[in-house]
Amino acid sequence: MSVIYKRVALIGLGLIASSMAHGMRRGGLSEHIVGTARSQKTRDIAREIGLCDVVVDSAAKAVQDADLVVLAIPIGAMAAVAREIGPHLKAGATVTDVGSVKRAVIEAVEPHIPDDVHFIPGHPLAGTEHSGPRSGFAELFDNRWCLLVPPADTQPEALAQLKDFWHGLGSNVDTMEADHHDLVLAVTSHAPHLIAYTMVGVADDLSRVTGSEVVNFSAAGFRDFTRIAASDPTMWRDVFLTNKDATLEILGRFTEELFALQRAIRTGDGDHLHKYFTRTRAIRRGIIEAGQDTDEPDFGRSTVKK
Amino acid sequence: MSVIYKRVALIGLGLIASSMAHGMRRGGLSEHIVGTARSQKTRDIAREIGLCDVVVDSAAKAVQDADLVVLAIPIGAMAAVAREIGPHLKAGATVTDVGSVKRAVIEAVEPHIPDDVHFIPGHPLAGTEHSGPRSGFAELFDNRWCLLVPPADTQPEALAQLKDFWHGLGSNVDTMEADHHDLVLAVTSHAPHLIAYTMVGVADDLSRVTGSEVVNFSAAGFRDFTRIAASDPTMWRDVFLTNKDATLEILGRFTEELFALQRAIRTGDGDHLHKYFTRTRAIRRGIIEAGQDTDEPDFGRSTVKK
Repeated sequence: MSVIYKRVALIGLGLIASSMAHGMRRGGLSEHIVGTARSQKTRDIAREIGLCDVVVDSAAKAVQDADLVVLAIPIGAMAAVAREIGPHLKAGATVTDVGSVKRAVIEAVEPHIPDDVHFIPGHPLAGTEHSGPRSGFAELFDNRWCLLVPPADTQPEALAQLKDFWHGLGSNVDTMEADHHDLVLAVTSHAPHLIAYTMVGVADDLSRVTGSEVVNFSAAGFRDFTRIAASDPTMWRDVFLTNKDATLEILGRFTEELFALQRAIRTGDGDHLHKYFTRTRAIRRGIIEAGQDTDEPDFGRSTVKK
Repeated sequence: MSVIYKRVALIGLGLIASSMAHGMRRGGLSEHIVGTARSQKTRDIAREIGLCDVVVDSAAKAVQDADLVVLAIPIGAMAAVAREIGPHLKAGATVTDVGSVKRAVIEAVEPHIPDDVHFIPGHPLAGTEHSGPRSGFAELFDNRWCLLVPPADTQPEALAQLKDFWHGLGSNVDTMEADHHDLVLAVTSHAPHLIAYTMVGVADDLSRVTGSEVVNFSAAGFRDFTRIAASDPTMWRDVFLTNKDATLEILGRFTEELFALQRAIRTGDGDHLHKYFTRTRAIRRGIIEAGQDTDEPDFGRSTVKK
């Protein structure tokens, strides 16, 4: 690999940014990584573990002379940070982000980006249930997809450079229109997360089933939901508030379908259920063949000893 | 370990029974394992891989002289098999099952069990998304819970022996009343499975999002649902048809809660969402501390290479 952006500024130092820092070093993609985060504690941890070459105390300071600026913060914080960094961006620099919703990020950030700076929103489809600067690892993006959402007037060279960067981090790259991205992600991510949060919340609320019963007997399926429902609350609050329409549309479809299956249960329509459950097996097969999941039973989880 | 039941008959040779066969051998829990399955193909595979000491062609034949008979078949098949084996059971033998619903199994099986045979229904809370005689492995039950649902007049010695057997397979054992079991499992397993099946079905149905988009971009959360929704369709059809009331009750609670969260999204109530998403993190922590899941990011999934 060779250097793609000499100087990279990471704004926000959570799971995604810290994984990018490790990945850039693994691939030799940059010469100098500057990081910053809103909280003093996060900055202190990043300094302690040597996550970046330097950690500074403000976003305005971090972006000075940066060739690539990565906004890796909750979507609700994008507008304020864009306003802060706008006047300090270097001419010819590229600004990108890693937010899970793209239309809202464009609306929040674009007005603050000077004409001589490239703004190419992005979204790496990778993550774990863990958060914070210690949770990053270089392999997070390997063989995952990164979706870029370039505005119509994006300079081809700037786009090609950002693609090279994500390839260097191990990703596959695709481009997409912002509204379509938000619909696709409502299906593959946002609705599933809300559903998982809901199911875990329901289990927590039941008075006739104890907490220890839920915990001990979770291996029958429920524990997969709890992993998703352990994701960062601030990030996810912002996702739902900013991808409202697409998420509500998909949840509407989901509820409709759930009601049809509930009705099949109530009326004892076993054929309907069996047909439905057979069809859903094929999607799993497709995901495994596309290299997006392991075929090992139970995700290859190791047995946990007490 | 020492021999707990000299002669064990496995009726049905899917994931659970084949894992029990491997586990019995690992622990030296029996001297002789007889297996049978309804389909010729399953019996042939079991013979080919040497799963049991002997594979016979009927359940009636399999249970002759058996000290323990394990019904490891879909719940809808229990009544017919119980009727078939009833007259051939040895006096003093124990009959158990591994079905995911207990009230329905008791109603289907109990009438066919002679007075001099112990009937103690059971349910090991363990499984993977794979099915069939090749999918079993000895470690499946290690550190998982097996719930036994002994009738009020169960002989203590017979219950103690079955507990020893499950301990020998690596499980923790608890006893529970049948209706309570069915409610607990509706929460920890049945409702989550139906929800996962539904979400995967919805994704498969959307015309504005392509199949390859769903497959490629599944790593953002959706792929966890596809694993659950790849479970055996016949088994799950029977679970929902036979645990109708508890499953519908929990799904009703789920829908109520989902509507409340949808309303919070629609009205922009970020505080409600954030509070909800924070609370659900605690359950995950409890599950990890109880040794029922790994704390490794993404279940410790290995990266899949194309």
